[in-house]
Amino acid sequence: MTLVASSRRSFLRSAAVAGAVATAGFAQQSERRPNEENEVQLSQIHGPSEQKESTPGPFLPEDRRVGFAIVGLGRLSLNQILPAFGSSEYSKPVALVSGDRAKAAKIAAQYGINGSAIYGYANYEELAKNPEVKAIYIVLPNGMHEEYVVRGAKTGKHILCEKPMATSSKEAEHMITACKQAKVKLMIAYRQQYEPHNRALRQLVTEGKLGELRGFVSSNSQQEGDPAQWRLKRSLSGGGCLPDVGLYCLNAARFLSGEEPSEVMAQTWQPKDDLRFVEVEASCSFSLRFPSGYTATCTTSYDVHKSQFLRMEGTSAWAEMSPAFAYHGNKLKWSHLDGEHENEIAPQIEEKDQFALEMDHFAECILEGIEPKTPGEEGLRDHRVMEAIYESARTGKRVKL
Amino acid sequence: MTLVASSRRSFLRSAAVAGAVATAGFAQQSERRPNEENEVQLSQIHGPSEQKESTPGPFLPEDRRVGFAIVGLGRLSLNQILPAFGSSEYSKPVALVSGDRAKAAKIAAQYGINGSAIYGYANYEELAKNPEVKAIYIVLPNGMHEEYVVRGAKTGKHILCEKPMATSSKEAEHMITACKQAKVKLMIAYRQQYEPHNRALRQLVTEGKLGELRGFVSSNSQQEGDPAQWRLKRSLSGGGCLPDVGLYCLNAARFLSGEEPSEVMAQTWQPKDDLRFVEVEASCSFSLRFPSGYTATCTTSYDVHKSQFLRMEGTSAWAEMSPAFAYHGNKLKWSHLDGEHENEIAPQIEEKDQFALEMDHFAECILEGIEPKTPGEEGLRDHRVMEAIYESARTGKRVKL
Amino acid sequence: MTLVASSRRSFLRSAAVAGAVATAGFAQQSERRPNEENEVQLSQIHGPSEQKESTPGPFLPEDRRVGFAIVGLGRLSLNQILPAFGSSEYSKPVALVSGDRAKAAKIAAQYGINGSAIYGYANYEELAKNPEVKAIYIVLPNGMHEEYVVRGAKTGKHILCEKPMATSSKEAEHMITACKQAKVKLMIAYRQQYEPHNRALRQLVTEGKLGELRGFVSSNSQQEGDPAQWRLKRSLSGGGCLPDVGLYCLNAARFLSGEEPSEVMAQTWQPKDDLRFVEVEASCSFSLRFPSGYTATCTTSYDVHKSQFLRMEGTSAWAEMSPAFAYHGNKLKWSHLDGEHENEIAPQIEEKDQFALEMDHFAECILEGIEPKTPGEEGLRDHRVMEAIYESARTGKRVKL
Amino acid sequence: MTLVASSRRSFLRSAAVAGAVATAGFAQQSERRPNEENEVQLSQIHGPSEQKESTPGPFLPEDRRVGFAIVGLGRLSLNQILPAFGSSEYSKPVALVSGDRAKAAKIAAQYGINGSAIYGYANYEELAKNPEVKAIYIVLPNGMHEEYVVRGAKTGKHILCEKPMATSSKEAEHMITACKQAKVKLMIAYRQQYEPHNRALRQLVTEGKLGELRGFVSSNSQQEGDPAQWRLKRSLSGGGCLPDVGLYCLNAARFLSGEEPSEVMAQTWQPKDDLRFVEVEASCSFSLRFPSGYTATCTTSYDVHKSQFLRMEGTSAWAEMSPAFAYHGNKLKWSHLDGEHENEIAPQIEEKDQFALEMDHFAECILEGIEPKTPGEEGLRDHRVMEAIYESARTGKRVKL
Repeated sequence: MTLVASSRRSFLRSAAVAGAVATAGFAQQSERRPNEENEVQLSQIHGPSEQKESTPGPFLPEDRRVGFAIVGLGRLSLNQILPAFGSSEYSKPVALVSGDRAKAAKIAAQYGINGSAIYGYANYEELAKNPEVKAIYIVLPNGMHEEYVVRGAKTGKHILCEKPMATSSKEAEHMITACKQAKVKLMIAYRQQYEPHNRALRQLVTEGKLGELRGFVSSNSQQEGDPAQWRLKRSLSGGGCLPDVGLYCLNAARFLSGEEPSEVMAQTWQPKDDLRFVEVEASCSFSLRFPSGYTATCTTSYDVHKSQFLRMEGTSAWAEMSPAFAYHGNKLKWSHLDGEHENEIAPQIEEKDQFALEMDHFAECILEGIEPKTPGEEGLRDHRVMEAIYESARTGKRVKL
Repeated sequence: MTLVASSRRSFLRSAAVAGAVATAGFAQQSERRPNEENEVQLSQIHGPSEQKESTPGPFLPEDRRVGFAIVGLGRLSLNQILPAFGSSEYSKPVALVSGDRAKAAKIAAQYGINGSAIYGYANYEELAKNPEVKAIYIVLPNGMHEEYVVRGAKTGKHILCEKPMATSSKEAEHMITACKQAKVKLMIAYRQQYEPHNRALRQLVTEGKLGELRGFVSSNSQQEGDPAQWRLKRSLSGGGCLPDVGLYCLNAARFLSGEEPSEVMAQTWQPKDDLRFVEVEASCSFSLRFPSGYTATCTTSYDVHKSQFLRMEGTSAWAEMSPAFAYHGNKLKWSHLDGEHENEIAPQIEEKDQFALEMDHFAECILEGIEPKTPGEEGLRDHRVMEAIYESARTGKRVKL
Repeated sequence: MTLVASSRRSFLRSAAVAGAVATAGFAQQSERRPNEENEVQLSQIHGPSEQKESTPGPFLPEDRRVGFAIVGLGRLSLNQILPAFGSSEYSKPVALVSGDRAKAAKIAAQYGINGSAIYGYANYEELAKNPEVKAIYIVLPNGMHEEYVVRGAKTGKHILCEKPMATSSKEAEHMITACKQAKVKLMIAYRQQYEPHNRALRQLVTEGKLGELRGFVSSNSQQEGDPAQWRLKRSLSGGGCLPDVGLYCLNAARFLSGEEPSEVMAQTWQPKDDLRFVEVEASCSFSLRFPSGYTATCTTSYDVHKSQFLRMEGTSAWAEMSPAFAYHGNKLKWSHLDGEHENEIAPQIEEKDQFALEMDHFAECILEGIEPKTPGEEGLRDHRVMEAIYESARTGKRVKL
Repeated sequence: MTLVASSRRSFLRSAAVAGAVATAGFAQQSERRPNEENEVQLSQIHGPSEQKESTPGPFLPEDRRVGFAIVGLGRLSLNQILPAFGSSEYSKPVALVSGDRAKAAKIAAQYGINGSAIYGYANYEELAKNPEVKAIYIVLPNGMHEEYVVRGAKTGKHILCEKPMATSSKEAEHMITACKQAKVKLMIAYRQQYEPHNRALRQLVTEGKLGELRGFVSSNSQQEGDPAQWRLKRSLSGGGCLPDVGLYCLNAARFLSGEEPSEVMAQTWQPKDDLRFVEVEASCSFSLRFPSGYTATCTTSYDVHKSQFLRMEGTSAWAEMSPAFAYHGNKLKWSHLDGEHENEIAPQIEEKDQFALEMDHFAECILEGIEPKTPGEEGLRDHRVMEAIYESARTGKRVKL
């Protein structure tokens, strides 16, 4: 059985032909490959029973890569996104937008970004004049996404926006419209949809290895500390654990099945005596019913030791990622009856930088004029479900979508 | 850290002193131990860094053991319960009650049960006249539990009844009253409460290894086949997957935390075109809210490949059993930050026959005149929660307990 | 793929037809099955994608079982062998031979053995007069095996002897001759050859799942404590870690491959300042070369924290048991390329009592008049290899077999 | 317990103070850190029970990084080393040396290397004139190492040489002398000594978590295919599986213990009918005795499905890496008695690019004027042991070192 393509490129190609995948927003991909003229592939020296080696790349030369402006220099930018350019094939960082010029200068020095390409929030629109910038990556607090996507779209640059897309479906709709009007691409940074273990699991599902899909069980939870952080302020975050980490469960329940939910039941918990949870929920559990009978049962918390997993239950097998949703160290296992024994099978899948894969997908969309697999509409769908979750928790009633 | 006591006896003793455990219904145990006079313990020959060896038993001689009448010779009796007597310390099978005399005779021959101690359902009350029988183990379809517990109590024998206790809380209340009036003990066969991995997990919780408990996530699901089996007939089963396998999730959420739920939200699924699910639900997901903020998110199905796990989430660690609820092969793992790394810790716990442990607990209660840890009241509590689950699924509303 | 038969009986049948297995001494089995007339098998109620349930047994009625006399009441008898009768199908304990009559009386009381069937070493031969005793199980220090097998054979009872068979190949030869002359069966208690995970691994090998077998790597080591124990006295043990725990590696290297070694290189270590190792080696590493090029690289120690594993390397896959050789908790995993990924596969195999399986095999041999799969000759082969190991360690030279 | 430092820098600092580590050749490190002036560290927003986040780097700006010339564009350079620069902190590729100019041009285009910095083997010495080149990384067939290290040293550039260092200890000695005379640093590319799981295991050993070290068991094996490859030609490789993959076992046995072996016993296997093994051994097993009684038992093969693990056995615990030696996906686990249970503990260690860590160590040595932890002498020691291994295999006798 072939779980996932060995290179990200062939993953894109196979995605293009998988009809079921298209329902999750996967666009048609071209067959040409950037920089094929510089590809070097070596012969296989190992026996045919060994895993094939592949040569990474071919990497696009610096001067042909898609230049990104990174907007916001918080922990995600510094700890994950900027380092990811080092294993990118088609992308490079060329500009920084930050409210802290001194910090931005240090970062620019580390990543070889020209000191003249540091911008503040006030002169953000000057990105329009920087021809090196082809894409803007919004890595700001959720409550600022709408403004910076809309302002960014007006510069004529393509927009990659972190998840959650916004703080409401109304904002999300506005962002989609603004990008359409400006004729720029809009992609939401659902990194897990580009991550190899998730791709392999999606393939198990589409190949029918689990039988018919019936259940999805998941938790994505962690222990928040500092009560002063923006994630705990409603105006900046739009909510507590649900839009931040719970969103991964929700999106995976949709993405991995290719189905859209029709009913929601949910509960939230907001303790009265905890300074961290004055404005937002500490935890949330929700159950999604899909038309086929497939059901997702999810829980998320900001007051639990980091706990990240998902399990998919089909009529003839189950599959599990534990951890799931992690930046590093995701593991996949599935289990079915093989002859007389239940066999647990763990495909050994090489870790790839998810942010590099995600940015390279957007770069490729720009280079080849195709639509992203996770466009604004993908983010909008999640916002509509999250609004139903909050409504059900508030009313204590089942909510139809 | 000491996870669980190495012998079941010392487990009982430690349970007796753990106050938190008492909330889950654990009774005071005596300090005397049956058959101590025949105990043989050997010196330790291995180094102190090795796990200590212990000698099993001391087994009670046959003639001092508690004799059980097994009522019902279905798969649970034949595949699990009768073989379990082989590793029991205090129990022995001495009578069979079955509607199929030829089958009962074969089984009696295998297990050394006297041919004269085979009874039918009509002459079930004749057990009263068999002095070898001290306990009756009801292993019938759920819908017959009430009748056979009530009739059994009248024989003056103590009653061990399989889970679910009944098909309604009303029946359960009646059964409790009947046994009280007859002055016989009533225990519900929650085998997992006697199983070593569950005991070790319960101990992790009570020792605070997980911090404060916040979440419980679990699935107990399997793929039913034969549409003609009694589990799929409402009058015999009282429901579908929920009272049969989902009950394990519910009971574990209560037992492992020592808390009782206050609110329920739930959904069930009963496909229209599946012959198996004409009378009962195929799947059910439910969310339990407990007063402390602890939340249980559970799913159960009769139309999914066997999938059995539970995860407990605390403020500083998580713990997982995968599989959980199984007759064999349960595994426990927990994870916390230790210095700079998250450490996943897998205690290597020797498998014990859960049915032997459960029956020996009841035997000991009878021998020593103490109350079972899982009395009728424990089963009644679960029935009340299950009724709330069905109500929430039917009304689409949150239900308070 | 079918790894192992679900019942031990069908394992015997499949063993009978597997030619490769025959080279390891597997005898032809009859097709009749003891107590078939009392077999009860239930219908399958689960879907076909679930593992089949099987009913244990059919257990032979007590009065038709093979009665064993247990000779020696040390930790192996008390902690493993006597409790194993509880899950045995064809065997029962009927007599005890011990130098400590009080201890024997306590044990007899626990296991329902008649007080008149307790013997001392001096009147051991009186077993001849006890018609209930059909088999004698020798569980004495190694240095006493020869005497008690030879004396036992003269009683006309069949002999099951613990491993290592003796303290030298000369003794082993004498024991074989004595049993042949007395026309009694002689079996060596290689429990791992009857253990389900080992059987499944043997089947992977014979089915070619690993390709051609090339390598075997293993350790079986533990930390000894009490310097006064008999295992550390050469006259009683015949050696240190090698004949006791290292023998498992050696026997598995032979049994799992079906090949016999032709060359040996080895080293031993006996520290000068450790009271435990005045007479015997503390550790030993050895390398066995087999004619096909298959090589076993093994290590064993009495001065290491319990460490038990084996790995088999074939041309297209590897397989591992970790732990291996354990009384409980053995696990099997194998790994091969499946499509684009290396898949690690863990068959979920239910634990069975190895001593029950082993004793039942011997009981069946007696009941049906067939030869044991692990006869005296199997033990003799291991002694010859162990003598070559010691010779190589002493001379520092490769030794041919 | 703290297993490993979270950043590679603090690892170097902790290494500097660990006396035991010094025996494996670890040099004193300065306290200053390149580019500290550009470091940005963010506050911790998660609770104290969560793993701390750290910001990578600070990365040195391109113009202050150490420029490497990569000599040889085979699979190791293309698949591992060149991509590793993307996650390097202090290193950059600035020149290529190859016999295939067209291939080199393609690679240069991908990695942003100036087309004028491509050299052939004949004009290799012209590297001397390229001021961007500070270090030469020799990634040629083993038989060419001596020539290219010696010629490279004469250019005045520092030399990083792939393992095995050479094809004989004599060559290795010559290389050391040549670099000393040229006053350039010489480091052997033992990537595993820089890999985080190995570092964590080394720390477990030095902290005494395993008790006293007694045993090391390991295999590093794979299935070779193409018989025409240079690894199978003795003049280019110096041997078969032993110097290529078996060397990892040997080096780990030394590095992880900090001890040097005193005696060797070994066997090799070279099948007569296999075209791949006309010149070199297919497999080799060897046993190393160290003065303390610690023993390493290793096996390596070119005719086995990829199998890579190591286990260390101490007096009170064992530790295992499985896989070990891999480019990606190494896993660490250790096991000891904790209270009443054996606990298997799996530290969750984030994967880091081993080649980046190794090259950055060399870059830091150059930038700060310190000695590499794995100098030429480290490679020389392994060659002396490998020569003893081959001698023992040839003579069938134990060889003293």
